[in-house]
Order: sequence, then C-alpha cells, then structure tokens
Amino acid sequence: MHIVKTVESLCRSVKKIKSQNKTIGFVPTMGALHDGHCSLIRKSRRENDIVVISIFVNPSQFGPKEDFKAYPRPEKKDILLAKKEKVDIIFYPSEKVMYPTGFLTNVHVDEITDRLCGATRPGHFRGVTTVVGKLLNIVTPDALYLGQKDAQQVVVLKRMIADLNFPVAVKVCPIIREPDGLAMSSRNKYLTPRQREGATVLFKSLKDARKRALAGEYNAANILRRMRTAIRKHTPGKIDYIVCVDAHSLIPLKQLKGRVMVVLAVKFGQTRLIDNIIFYI
Amino acid sequence: MHIVKTVESLCRSVKKIKSQNKTIGFVPTMGALHDGHCSLIRKSRRENDIVVISIFVNPSQFGPKEDFKAYPRPEKKDILLAKKEKVDIIFYPSEKVMYPTGFLTNVHVDEITDRLCGATRPGHFRGVTTVVGKLLNIVTPDALYLGQKDAQQVVVLKRMIADLNFPVAVKVCPIIREPDGLAMSSRNKYLTPRQREGATVLFKSLKDARKRALAGEYNAANILRRMRTAIRKHTPGKIDYIVCVDAHSLIPLKQLKGRVMVVLAVKFGQTRLIDNIIFYI
Repeated sequence: MHIVKTVESLCRSVKKIKSQNKTIGFVPTMGALHDGHCSLIRKSRRENDIVVISIFVNPSQFGPKEDFKAYPRPEKKDILLAKKEKVDIIFYPSEKVMYPTGFLTNVHVDEITDRLCGATRPGHFRGVTTVVGKLLNIVTPDALYLGQKDAQQVVVLKRMIADLNFPVAVKVCPIIREPDGLAMSSRNKYLTPRQREGATVLFKSLKDARKRALAGEYNAANILRRMRTAIRKHTPGKIDYIVCVDAHSLIPLKQLKGRVMVVLAVKFGQTRLIDNIIFYI
Repeated sequence: MHIVKTVESLCRSVKKIKSQNKTIGFVPTMGALHDGHCSLIRKSRRENDIVVISIFVNPSQFGPKEDFKAYPRPEKKDILLAKKEKVDIIFYPSEKVMYPTGFLTNVHVDEITDRLCGATRPGHFRGVTTVVGKLLNIVTPDALYLGQKDAQQVVVLKRMIADLNFPVAVKVCPIIREPDGLAMSSRNKYLTPRQREGATVLFKSLKDARKRALAGEYNAANILRRMRTAIRKHTPGKIDYIVCVDAHSLIPLKQLKGRVMVVLAVKFGQTRLIDNIIFYI
C-alpha cells in the first residue's frame, strides 16, 4: 500500500495504472474510518483493479462554529485499517496541497444544497462539491463509492457529476449500523453514554415511519408528528429537521408517493447526527 | 472528420483514442471560425495525435442584453474550415445536450472575475468556467489551446484548471490580427465601415503604450491618459475600460513593473471589442 501526499505523485501513479488498462475505484473519506467506510472500500475492492482512498479533513465544508478542529484524526489506525482492507493507495494530502495560496475556485450546485443540511450548514455542500471535483480530477477513477448515510451529499454529488460530465460511475452503498441500529459515523464517538443510548431512537423512528407508510399512512405530517414525539420523548436531542422528501429531487412531500426518503438531523449537545431511510410507495 | 453531437458518442470516440495511447489537443470555440481559431487548431495539430474542437455558442456566458441571438453561426463554413485544418472531431452539441433539464451546477472563480470584462459582464466568466469545465470532462484532452486575445479568460481558466486539478496542459497562443492590426474576432463583422476603420486605433494605442513604457514611462496614469485621448480622437468608440494590470494576477498597476498587460474593451455601437498587449519592465 502506498501513502501519497502530493498531487504530482498521485498523478504519476494514476498514469502508470491507466497505462496498464487497470480500473480505479475511489473512496473519498475524512478519515476516522469505521465499518461504513470499510463497506465502501470492500465494494470498490471487489469491483476494481486498484482501490484509491483519500483521507482529508476538508476545512471548506465545515462552518466557522463546527467541529473542524475537534474532528478525529486517528492517522495510524486509519492506515492500518486501510492496509487490512487491501487499499492500494491512500491519498493523504495536506491543506496546503489541496488549497495552495491563491486558490479562488469553487463548484456549486444550486437549489438542492439550500434545504435539509444545507439550511443549517451554509457553504457545507459548496465545500464538498469543490473538494470532490478536485479529487475526481486528481484520481480520475472509473467508479466513485459513496455512503447512503450522507443522503443529501449523494444527491448533490450525483447532480454535480452529471452536470459537469465527470466521466465516473457513482456507486451508492447502504448505511452500515451499530448492532443497536445507530448509523455508523465518525462523530458517534463525541456522544456521552446517555446521548449514545438516546440516539438509537433515530433509526427506530425511521423504521416506524416506513412501517406506517407501507401500511397506508401517506400523510407526511402524520408520520413526522409521530417521529418528533418519539425523539423528544426518548432523547435530549434537539431536532434540526425531519422531512419526507422525494429521494431524487429532495423536494418535501405532503403526500408520500414514489421513491420516498425520510431524512433527519438531530443534535445531541454539539454533536449533529444524520440518518435516513428510503422506501417505495 | 467526425461531427459528434452527443456526449455519449464523443466519450466513445475518446475512449477509443485513449486506448490507442494517442494524445488529444482541444480547441473550444463558439464557431464563426477565423484565422485566430485556425492558429490554435494548427498548433494543436502539430502537437497532438488527435485534434478535437468544440463549436457551442454557450448561452450562459452571454448577459441578457448581449448578442447571444445575433452571434454568427455559419455552420457549413465552420465545418469546411475545420476539415481544411485537419480537425479530427468537431463536438457540436445542442443547448439541450449541454444543459439538460434539471441542470444546477456551476464552476466559479472568485475575485479575478469581478474586474475588467467581469465588471460589465456579470456572470460571463461563471458561464465560461462552467462550460469549459464540462468540455474538459467530456473531451479529456492532454492539452487545451486558448487565444491570448481573451486575456482575462486565459487567466481565469488557468486559475480554474490549477485550482480544480484538471489534468490538462494549457497552451496560450498569440493574438492573430488583420493586416491593419485589428485583433481578429467573430464580432468584427458587426462593425460598420466607419467603426471598422476607427477600431484600428485600439492596437495602435496599445503599441504606443508599450513603446512609451519600454522607453521609461512607468506611470500607468500617464500611459492610460494618452491612450484614452487617442481612442476618443480617432473613433466614435465608447471606452469600457483601459487598464495596466499585472499579467498574472490582473491587479491594476499604478507603476509598471514585471509582466505588464495593457488591456482594453471599447464599444462601437453594440459591438464590444477587446484587445491587449503584454511586455516586461
């Protein structure tokens, strides 16, 4: 496994790989790797000759009051895990490599970045699309592996990739959960024991919403009211949003129809957790 | 020569070319090809195995009151000329191919797009960077050929390509001029005989500025005053801007130093002409 820290060095490796007609699968991460990331790496491993992951805690996708500094950076553990998962190359750039002096460009997706997480995290998705645009140009992968946990990120990046004609296939992998159902996240380790226990209500309420919807409750307001009540009853968490949306467009639905996503963000102290569930009506 | 109208079809051609390890030189144009474009095509022809040009009058880089509808589209003449210049592929997409329903993404370069042409053409460079970003992802060229006539466009696109790590070399080709010195432009044909005659003062005044600067006049205000006087005296043209700037950063200079660009935009009726000259102090 190679750990590559500069763009030039990675481009040389990629050129060699391409000259051998090998395919590249790419998993962009912010490190603090967990089983969610591993599921992406494994799928990429199965489907490609070469697996590249990036580890970069991207400052431009954090708001000024968010957890950029506190975000976990367990470098050695991440490298060991990547090795175990048979990653070929870790692209591990510094901030200066990604945003050198004089950097002025950004990639922005309109409309679908304003709602849900975008409403409380202005600039977040601009940071994500810009850094992923850069990474796609550096790694030039055949396939990009994304986790469904970051549901809005998936929709936004798919839109960017289609709109800007990036020549890459997008593979979305299912949410990986802890035994008690909590969606895996590098931020779960911020939770106190009480918050951690309460956080299990998120997935329970999503499953309950799906069950009710599939049983014929198509009124979004009724579904959401029940979810809010359960979350408030069982946790000290503060609801940022819970919405039923069209899973393609992220447009809120009053009546559930088609490919529905119920998606939520709840804050436990300073820790903001997200989760979602998709089903068909 | 192939004329390709869809992204899918072009991607198939590009894949085949890449599998043969051939290099691609790319010249993006809005058609109405003249000797300026031909000089780019010829350089690309000399330096690459395959030459791709695009012809697309990009609506998103025109302002609402600009000449998008009137912009010349001599399709047959362009195709003949491209054939004569031994172009391998013309990518000739429709608006719907480039901006299908649901398109939401743009690429934006900050700061250096606000001044000069950006000041009077808000959104223009966003349109340029977005469409060129798309074209680079579609054509995946080894080298991109740009004309120095669009000086700010060159600086902005170089910035975008560096910032987003597009794996392409940028080759900037000198301005091609009519026998009387007027920089070639698809918009020159809009000029009335009187405007056309007056327009020759633009390059004359740029040459005069260079001559004075190289003779020791480093005060930008003095140089610009003389240029304005000459342009007002000899033409009915309305000056949009004349500035001495640092050729790399486009920052205005009071004292000429380093790689200096004198750059101007002058309107003759509805026709806006641009020109520039670069020299070292």
